[in-house]
Amino acid sequence: MTKKHNTLGGNVIAPESKAEHLDDDHPREACGIFGVYAPGLDVARLAFFALYALQHRGQESTGIATCDGQAAYVHKSMGLVSQVYNENNLAPLKGHMAIGHNRYSTTGSSHIRNAQPYLIETMHGPLGVAHNGNLTNASDLRSQLLERGVGLSTTTDSELITQILAAPATVWSPYCKPNGSGGDCWIDRIQAFMAVSEGAYSLAIITRDAIYAVRDPRGMRPLSIGRLEQGYVIASETCALNTINAHFIRDVAPGEIVRLNEAGITSFEGCPPEKHTLCVFEYIYFSRPDSLLDGQVIHQARQRMGRQLACEAPVDADLVIGVPDSAIPAAIGFSLESGIPYNEGLVKNRYIGRTFIQPDDRLRQQGVSLKFNTLAENLQGKRVVLVDDSIVRGNTSGPLVQLVRGAGAAEVHVRVCSPPIRHPCFMGIDMATYTELIAHRFDVEGIKKQIGADSLHYLSLDGMLDAICQHRSATYCTACFTGVYPISIPDWLFEDNRDKLYFEEVWGI
Amino acid sequence: MTKKHNTLGGNVIAPESKAEHLDDDHPREACGIFGVYAPGLDVARLAFFALYALQHRGQESTGIATCDGQAAYVHKSMGLVSQVYNENNLAPLKGHMAIGHNRYSTTGSSHIRNAQPYLIETMHGPLGVAHNGNLTNASDLRSQLLERGVGLSTTTDSELITQILAAPATVWSPYCKPNGSGGDCWIDRIQAFMAVSEGAYSLAIITRDAIYAVRDPRGMRPLSIGRLEQGYVIASETCALNTINAHFIRDVAPGEIVRLNEAGITSFEGCPPEKHTLCVFEYIYFSRPDSLLDGQVIHQARQRMGRQLACEAPVDADLVIGVPDSAIPAAIGFSLESGIPYNEGLVKNRYIGRTFIQPDDRLRQQGVSLKFNTLAENLQGKRVVLVDDSIVRGNTSGPLVQLVRGAGAAEVHVRVCSPPIRHPCFMGIDMATYTELIAHRFDVEGIKKQIGADSLHYLSLDGMLDAICQHRSATYCTACFTGVYPISIPDWLFEDNRDKLYFEEVWGI
Amino acid sequence: MTKKHNTLGGNVIAPESKAEHLDDDHPREACGIFGVYAPGLDVARLAFFALYALQHRGQESTGIATCDGQAAYVHKSMGLVSQVYNENNLAPLKGHMAIGHNRYSTTGSSHIRNAQPYLIETMHGPLGVAHNGNLTNASDLRSQLLERGVGLSTTTDSELITQILAAPATVWSPYCKPNGSGGDCWIDRIQAFMAVSEGAYSLAIITRDAIYAVRDPRGMRPLSIGRLEQGYVIASETCALNTINAHFIRDVAPGEIVRLNEAGITSFEGCPPEKHTLCVFEYIYFSRPDSLLDGQVIHQARQRMGRQLACEAPVDADLVIGVPDSAIPAAIGFSLESGIPYNEGLVKNRYIGRTFIQPDDRLRQQGVSLKFNTLAENLQGKRVVLVDDSIVRGNTSGPLVQLVRGAGAAEVHVRVCSPPIRHPCFMGIDMATYTELIAHRFDVEGIKKQIGADSLHYLSLDGMLDAICQHRSATYCTACFTGVYPISIPDWLFEDNRDKLYFEEVWGI
Amino acid sequence: MTKKHNTLGGNVIAPESKAEHLDDDHPREACGIFGVYAPGLDVARLAFFALYALQHRGQESTGIATCDGQAAYVHKSMGLVSQVYNENNLAPLKGHMAIGHNRYSTTGSSHIRNAQPYLIETMHGPLGVAHNGNLTNASDLRSQLLERGVGLSTTTDSELITQILAAPATVWSPYCKPNGSGGDCWIDRIQAFMAVSEGAYSLAIITRDAIYAVRDPRGMRPLSIGRLEQGYVIASETCALNTINAHFIRDVAPGEIVRLNEAGITSFEGCPPEKHTLCVFEYIYFSRPDSLLDGQVIHQARQRMGRQLACEAPVDADLVIGVPDSAIPAAIGFSLESGIPYNEGLVKNRYIGRTFIQPDDRLRQQGVSLKFNTLAENLQGKRVVLVDDSIVRGNTSGPLVQLVRGAGAAEVHVRVCSPPIRHPCFMGIDMATYTELIAHRFDVEGIKKQIGADSLHYLSLDGMLDAICQHRSATYCTACFTGVYPISIPDWLFEDNRDKLYFEEVWGI
Repeated sequence: MTKKHNTLGGNVIAPESKAEHLDDDHPREACGIFGVYAPGLDVARLAFFALYALQHRGQESTGIATCDGQAAYVHKSMGLVSQVYNENNLAPLKGHMAIGHNRYSTTGSSHIRNAQPYLIETMHGPLGVAHNGNLTNASDLRSQLLERGVGLSTTTDSELITQILAAPATVWSPYCKPNGSGGDCWIDRIQAFMAVSEGAYSLAIITRDAIYAVRDPRGMRPLSIGRLEQGYVIASETCALNTINAHFIRDVAPGEIVRLNEAGITSFEGCPPEKHTLCVFEYIYFSRPDSLLDGQVIHQARQRMGRQLACEAPVDADLVIGVPDSAIPAAIGFSLESGIPYNEGLVKNRYIGRTFIQPDDRLRQQGVSLKFNTLAENLQGKRVVLVDDSIVRGNTSGPLVQLVRGAGAAEVHVRVCSPPIRHPCFMGIDMATYTELIAHRFDVEGIKKQIGADSLHYLSLDGMLDAICQHRSATYCTACFTGVYPISIPDWLFEDNRDKLYFEEVWGI
Repeated sequence: MTKKHNTLGGNVIAPESKAEHLDDDHPREACGIFGVYAPGLDVARLAFFALYALQHRGQESTGIATCDGQAAYVHKSMGLVSQVYNENNLAPLKGHMAIGHNRYSTTGSSHIRNAQPYLIETMHGPLGVAHNGNLTNASDLRSQLLERGVGLSTTTDSELITQILAAPATVWSPYCKPNGSGGDCWIDRIQAFMAVSEGAYSLAIITRDAIYAVRDPRGMRPLSIGRLEQGYVIASETCALNTINAHFIRDVAPGEIVRLNEAGITSFEGCPPEKHTLCVFEYIYFSRPDSLLDGQVIHQARQRMGRQLACEAPVDADLVIGVPDSAIPAAIGFSLESGIPYNEGLVKNRYIGRTFIQPDDRLRQQGVSLKFNTLAENLQGKRVVLVDDSIVRGNTSGPLVQLVRGAGAAEVHVRVCSPPIRHPCFMGIDMATYTELIAHRFDVEGIKKQIGADSLHYLSLDGMLDAICQHRSATYCTACFTGVYPISIPDWLFEDNRDKLYFEEVWGI
Repeated sequence: MTKKHNTLGGNVIAPESKAEHLDDDHPREACGIFGVYAPGLDVARLAFFALYALQHRGQESTGIATCDGQAAYVHKSMGLVSQVYNENNLAPLKGHMAIGHNRYSTTGSSHIRNAQPYLIETMHGPLGVAHNGNLTNASDLRSQLLERGVGLSTTTDSELITQILAAPATVWSPYCKPNGSGGDCWIDRIQAFMAVSEGAYSLAIITRDAIYAVRDPRGMRPLSIGRLEQGYVIASETCALNTINAHFIRDVAPGEIVRLNEAGITSFEGCPPEKHTLCVFEYIYFSRPDSLLDGQVIHQARQRMGRQLACEAPVDADLVIGVPDSAIPAAIGFSLESGIPYNEGLVKNRYIGRTFIQPDDRLRQQGVSLKFNTLAENLQGKRVVLVDDSIVRGNTSGPLVQLVRGAGAAEVHVRVCSPPIRHPCFMGIDMATYTELIAHRFDVEGIKKQIGADSLHYLSLDGMLDAICQHRSATYCTACFTGVYPISIPDWLFEDNRDKLYFEEVWGI
Repeated sequence: MTKKHNTLGGNVIAPESKAEHLDDDHPREACGIFGVYAPGLDVARLAFFALYALQHRGQESTGIATCDGQAAYVHKSMGLVSQVYNENNLAPLKGHMAIGHNRYSTTGSSHIRNAQPYLIETMHGPLGVAHNGNLTNASDLRSQLLERGVGLSTTTDSELITQILAAPATVWSPYCKPNGSGGDCWIDRIQAFMAVSEGAYSLAIITRDAIYAVRDPRGMRPLSIGRLEQGYVIASETCALNTINAHFIRDVAPGEIVRLNEAGITSFEGCPPEKHTLCVFEYIYFSRPDSLLDGQVIHQARQRMGRQLACEAPVDADLVIGVPDSAIPAAIGFSLESGIPYNEGLVKNRYIGRTFIQPDDRLRQQGVSLKFNTLAENLQGKRVVLVDDSIVRGNTSGPLVQLVRGAGAAEVHVRVCSPPIRHPCFMGIDMATYTELIAHRFDVEGIKKQIGADSLHYLSLDGMLDAICQHRSATYCTACFTGVYPISIPDWLFEDNRDKLYFEEVWGI
C-alpha cells in the first residue's frame, strides 16, 4: 500500500461547481475516444461527427487534435460537441490524421486545463493522447516522473501518459524489455508504458506519422477498428463507425497496439494479455444501443436481459414500462418474453442539459419534478412492471415508484436488469463510495421498502452474463457486483475518502 | 390585397446565421408561455421549472419577467433554459408573480432583441407580454401605431401588443366597445386589442397587480390553467403544470381573458368566440405526449392515430418501428392494432443541439449521417412498417427509408399519421412555402417513388380527426391539409416570398 | 414644482456595479456625438475614427448607426471604441450616412440597454438619435408620452426624444407653431421637440434621407460642423474633425437645426435662441486640448488660465508642475507668466482602465496609490506650485499634496484654474451633490487645511472668463460656481437625493 | 551555427491576429515581473497593484500565482491588468507569497497558453516562474530537455525554465558545479539553470517555501528589491515599488539569486557575473519616467539626453516640442539647455487600445490619423524642434513631420535622443529585422529626406551614455546601435527570417 496518493494534486484558478447528479442515478463513464488516418478526407470534420455520436460517453469537454505529418493542431473546450465546434475552429485543424475525445470528469477537477487530447512536443515531433480509463497506479507513476525531474501541470492521467511516452523506452527499461517494434520508437515506448502502468485504459495516440490504438491487457474499456475507403478509424463504440459510415473490422484486442499509417493497419503486442474483463456496465448502461461490443449488439443484449428477467422474476401484471431511455430495450424484452403488453409510461424531458438550479424547499414540497412526467392514462388502474437498468444510490427509484403510483398504477413491480451494486469501481467509473451504495447498506427486501415497490427483483449475475453473451465465451469485470477486482487496488482507495483528494491538501506532500 | 407588408421591418446589427433544419422535417412551433401568481413562492424558480418542461416548444431564447407589485424585473437570453438561468440571474427576479417565454423564431430575425417577454413602462406601471402565435394583421397594426406616432424598435408581435396595450382603450374605440371590465383598465385594453387584432395568439401578460391569460377567439394556440396551493398558474401545455405539481383546472376558453390576482382567478369575455380551431399539429407533433389538450392526452391520441392507420392501411409485415421520438406512440398503436410486433429500429442521438457543421461533399459520399443510426439486428430480413408523424418537405423520409433498407430490411412500408401537407401555415407555424411542400408537388404515388418506399400511406383527414377526438366534439384548424384557413389571409402572403420579407427592403416604404 | 420625478424609472435585469470614481475628482461628461453624410465613403469606418477621437467624452458604451436611404443598421456595445469595433461588426453597417455616440452614464443605469444611438422605426422610416446632454423636464415629457399611450422601455432621454419625434408635430402643437421647415416633416418634429423640451442637448439624428444636427437654445453642449471632400460631418469636438481630416466650418448655433443631405447643408431655426451658456467645464476639463470651441483653442485657453492664475495668485517658488493630463497646459502657462521653471513632477499611469479592485485596509495603510507616482528628483527641496484644473469633492487634492511633499518638496502651493465649485449641475454633468462638494462645506482657508497645502488659490470667475474669451464676447454657464442656473430647475432636484432615483421606487407610482 | 531552431515550435489552436504596430514605431519590451513574500498581507491584491504600475511593460496578458506554503493558485488571462482581475478571481489566490507577470509577446504566438506565470508540480511541491527576457540558447535547451524525454507543451522560455528547474541539479552537473546553496535544493537548481542558459533573463520564482529573484550574469533586464513592513518584494521597475509603498533597497546584482522567505532576504551567487550590459532602451523608452535604474532616475536621464542633444545639435528655433509621452522629458531638457521655449505641440489620444481597424484607401487619402493631432495655434509660423526618443522603422516620423508642418510650422527640426538603430535585438526585444530598420537602409541624410525634416540629428552614442550615467560608471548593451552583441548570437538568427519561425515548420524537425 502506498501513501503517495497525495501527489495526485494540481493547482487551479478557482474551483468550479461540481456537476450535480440531479435526478440521475447512473454510474458515469470516463470518456469517448476516436482516431482516424485518412489522407484526402477532412479528418477534423470526420472526428466531429464521430464525437457527436459518442457524446453520451462524456459531456463535460471535447477536443480534436490533427497532424499533417509536420505540425499538430488542436482545439478543445468545455461543452457539448454541438456547442464547441464550428467552421471557424475546425478549419485550422489541418492534416490527414486526427484523434478526438469527449470527457466526463472522474478524477481531476472540472477545468479546461484537464480537457483532452493532451498534446506535447517531443524529440520525435508532436505527441497527443486521448484516454478512456483510469490508471490505478497513477500516483506511483506521478512520483516516478517527478523524481526524474519532469514537472507536471495537470492532475490528469493523460499528461502522465504523454510524459511517460516522451521519454525513451530505455528510461523505463528496468521494468520492461523490447517486444518487437519493427524499429518504430513509439511502439517501444507504448510497450514500456504498458509494462509500468496498471489499470483500465483505451488510448488513441497521434504522432507525426501515425495513429496508435492501445488497449489495456484486460480490455477493460472498449475500442473498435473500422475501415473507410481512404483509411482507417478507431472509436470507443461502433455507433461512431456507423455514423461516419466506416466498416467495422474488429475490436482492438486486450494488450494490443494497432498502428494506422500509410502502410494501413499493423498489429503489435503491447503486453501479454490477461483475462479479458471488459466493464459489464458497457452492456448495462454506457454504450449506445446501436453499438456492437465483443460481437454483441447492445440493444439485443438488453432485450435478452429483459427476457431473462421475465424468466427469473415473473409477475402477474398488466403493463410493462421502462425507465427511458436506457431501460426501454429491456422492457421490450420483458414484454416479449412475458406476454404482458409494452407501452410508454414515463416521459423524459428531451432537453436535459446540466442545470444547477434546484427546487427550493417550498417547491420541493410542491412536488416539482424536473426530469420525468407520467402518462397517467396508460398507467391508471394497471399493475405495472417498471424495468430499470441498475440501481446505484437508489435516490431516483423511490421517486419514480411514487410517480407511477401517483399516476394511478394499482401495483408497481420493479425489475432491475443487473445485480445489486455492492462495491465501488476503482477503474475510472464514477459510481459511488461504499456508504453511498444502497445495496451496500440494505438487502433486497430493505431496498424494496426504501423505494416503496410492491416487489423488487434484480437480475442474477449468471442470468445477466448469459443474456449478454449467450455461450459465455466472453468474460467481464463484475467487480461492482462481486467485489472481485481484476486489478489489485491500493488499500487507501477503499477508505471511502476519494472526495477529499483535492489539490489543496496535495501540493504539500 | 394590402401592400403594407413592407412595414414588417426592423433594424439589426448583423444578420445571424439562420438555424438550419438539418435532418429535421417538422414544422416549427412558435413558443411556450407561462404565468404564475403565487405570493410566498419563489415565482422565478417556478417559472424556470415550467419553462424547462416547455423547452420543446422553443429553443432559441428564453426569458422570465417578475413583478413585486411595484417594480418589474426581467432576464432573457439566447439559448436553452438549462443554459440561460443560474442562481445569480434568478435571484434578482423578485416578486410574487411572473411570466415566462421560450421562443422559436418565426417572423423576426434570430436576435436577443426579439427575445420575450417584452417589457415596457406605461401610465399604469410595468407591462410585460409573452406571446405564442402570429398576428395576421400585424402589418396593419404596425401602420396604425406608426401613424399614431409610436416608434417601434423590433419586428416582433410582442412589442406591437405591448404598445397597443399601452394606450387607453379609447384610442382603439372606433373599433370596439367596452365589454364589462369591472373597472380594470387592463381588461378594457386587452378587449380593445382583441377587437383590432386578427390571427393566432395565446398571451401571458404581467402588470403591476395581476397576471392575465388571453386566448384568441378561435383558440388556435393552447393555454391551460392550473392551481397551486398558494396561487394559480397558466401554461401552454399541461406538462408544465405537472412538472411544478400544479393541479390542472381547465383550458382558457377561446376569446377569454383570465385574470390571476389576489382575488384568485376571474374570467372576462375578451371578444366573442368564433369556431374553435386549435392547430391540429399540437396533436401530431408539437405537444409533449404527457400533455392534455382539449381533454385528450396527446400520447393516447397518437396511439389512436397509429391504430387508425393500421385499420386504414394494413400491410403484411414482421415489425413495426417508429421514427423517434414523436412517432413512437403511434407505432405502438399500430402494433397493438395490427398485432405486428413493435420494436426499436432507429436510434436517435440524444444530444442533438444546434450545430452548423455539415458533412462536406466527400463525407456526404461516405454516407455520414448525423441524427439516426439503425439497429440492424432488429431489422435484418424483416418486412418493416416505418411509422412517421408527418411529412413536410420530404427531405428526411427518403434517407430514413434508405437507412432502414440498408440495415437489411426486406421491405419498408411508410405509414404517416397525418394527411398530406399541401398548404403553408400563415398563423405562426414555420412550415414551408408552397414550392417546398413535397405534397404540393407530388401525389402520394409520386412521393412514394421519391422516398423509395415499398408502400406509402397517409392517414385520412377524417381518420385523423376521429382518432384525436373520438366523438368529434372538438374542431381543429386543418388548413395545411385542406387549404381552408379559419382566418382570411392577405393575398400577398400567398406569394411564396416570405423569405424576402427582411428588413432591408422594408424601412424604405 | 413637479412630483413626477418618480417616473424616471425603468426595469433592469440585475443592477451592475456602479463605476467608481477611484482617485479621480472630476465631473463626468455625458457623451460625445458624431454624424456624417458622405456618399462614396465608408461612413461606419469614418464614424469609428471620429468616436475614437471623442473617447475622452464617454467610455462606458459606444454605438454607430448607419442608413443607406432604405434600411438602418446599428451596432452598440459596452466598452471602449477600440474594444467594441472590429471589421466584422463594421462591415454590415452599410450606407452613406451615419451617426455615432460614446456614452458616459449620468442618469439611467449602466446597461447595454441604455447605449446609444437609440433607433426606432416610424411612419417615415428609420429614426436614430445620439444625444449629449440632459433634459431637465424629462419626467414631464415621460408622463406626457405615457399618457398618450406610448410605452417606454428604457430610462434614457434618447428613447424619450425618439418617441417624441416619432409623432406628428401636431401632437405637440398646443405647445408650438410651425417655423418654416420647407416641407421636411422631420424639421417640423424637431421644432416641436425643441418647443416642449428644456435642458441641455446636442443631438445627431439619422433618418432615411438626412442627418440632422440640433443644439439647444442656450448652446449648452458643443457641436461643430465640418466639410469633407465628399460630404459633411458634425461632431461634439473639432478634434474629431481633425482626426478624419474634415475642414472645420463653424459651430451649430444655439437653437439651430442643421440638415446634412444630398442638397449639402441647410440651416433651420429650431427655436428662438436664448442667451448662449455653453458649459464652461468644456474649457476647464472636458474638451480635448486640440479642440476649438467658440473660436477658442482649448489648449490656448488653458494656458491663459494658467497665466491669469499666475497674475492673480503669484507665489515665490522654484518649480511649476501640473496634475496630468488636463492641468499641464495651465501649468505651462503659469510657468511662462511667472518665469518659474516648468517641469514634470507627477507621473500618471497611462493604462488607467476601469478597475473595481481597491486596496484593502492594510494595503491602504501601506500607502498604496493607484494612479500617480512622483518624480522625486525633480521635486526634492523645491518650493512647488501644483496646478490643478478644478476641485470637486476634494478627495484627490489632499493625497496629491501629501505625495508631492513626501517626495521631498519643501512647499506645496496649490493653484486651481477655476473658482470653487459650490453648486451641483442639473444639466447632465455628473458632478456631485451639495453635501459632497468640498467648497460647499468649507471656505478656501478650510479647504487649504483639508488638503494640507501651504497655500491654495482658486482662479477668480472674472479671471477665468477673461482667460477663456479675451474680449468676453461669449457667455457661459457658470452655475456650478455661482448657483445661477440658466434653466429653471425643479425644486425636487435640489433635494440631494438623486441617487435614490432608482427604478424600484419608480414603477409603482 | 546550429540548425536546432526548428525545435522552437509548438502547437496552437488557431493563429490569432498579430497585434499591429499601428502608428507606433517603438521596440516592444518583453515583460514586467513581480514577486512578494509578506505574511499577513493580501499578496494577490498587492501583486495586482504592482502589475498595474508595470502595465507599460506588457499589455497582452497578465497573471498572478500565489502559494500558502502548501498549494499554489494561479489566475492568468489575455488583456490589461484592469480588465483581467476582479474580486472574484483574486479571492481564491490565497497565501503569503506571490509572483506576477505582464506579457508582451516576443517569440511564441499570442495565446493564453503562453501567458505567465507558468506553474508545474515537482518533487518538491509547486514551482512557478515569471520571466522577462529571452534565452538565446533556448533551442539547444529545448533539444536537451526533449532528449531527456521531457515533453513540452508551449513554445515559451518560461516552460523551458520550469522544466529545467524541475530536475535535480545533478542532471545538469556535467555543466556546472555546486556553488554554496546552504542546502536549499532550489538554489542548486537555479545555479544549474544559470550555468547552462545563455541570454537575457530576470526571473521571479515561486516555490512552496520561498520567492526567488534571479538576474542573468550581464543584468540585461532590470530587477529591483524593496521592503514592506511585513516582508519583501521584487519588481522589474521601482515604479511598482512606489505604487505599493515599498521601500527601495537595491537592484538584484547581475548573476545574483535573492531569496525571500521567512528568514528575510538572502543573497546567493547564481553564477559569476559578466560585464554589466543592461539594455540601454530601458532608459530611452521602456522604463517609466519615475523608475530608478542603476541609481539613475529615468526622467532625469531623459532630461539630460535632451540637454546633451541641444549641445550636440543646436538649432535656431522658436519652440521645442516632444513626441508624447516618452520624449517629453527630453524635450523639456532640450528647452532648458537651449533656452528655446517648451510647449505642447502634439496631442495624443489617451485611450489608445489595440485596434485592428485601419483607414481604408479612400479614408487614407482623406488624411485620417488615428493617434496624434496638432495644436496648430502653438505651432503656427514657428520654427519647431521636434524631439523624439528613437527611430526604428521610421514609419511614424515622416507623418509626424508632415503633421507638424501641416499645422503651420515654418520649419521642423527633428532631434532624436538615441543613435541610429542599425542592428536587430536578439535578446528578447521585438524591434525589427535588418531590412526593416530605416537606419540600416539609409544614412542620416537619407533618413532626413525620407521623413521630410528640415534637419535631423541623432544623439551620439557617447553623448547618450554620458547623459544616462554621468560618470560612466555603468555599462550598457548598445548592440542595436553598434552591432556589438554582449552574447554570442547563433548565425541563423541573423538570417532575417525570424518571422518564419512558426510552429508549422517546426514540429516536423
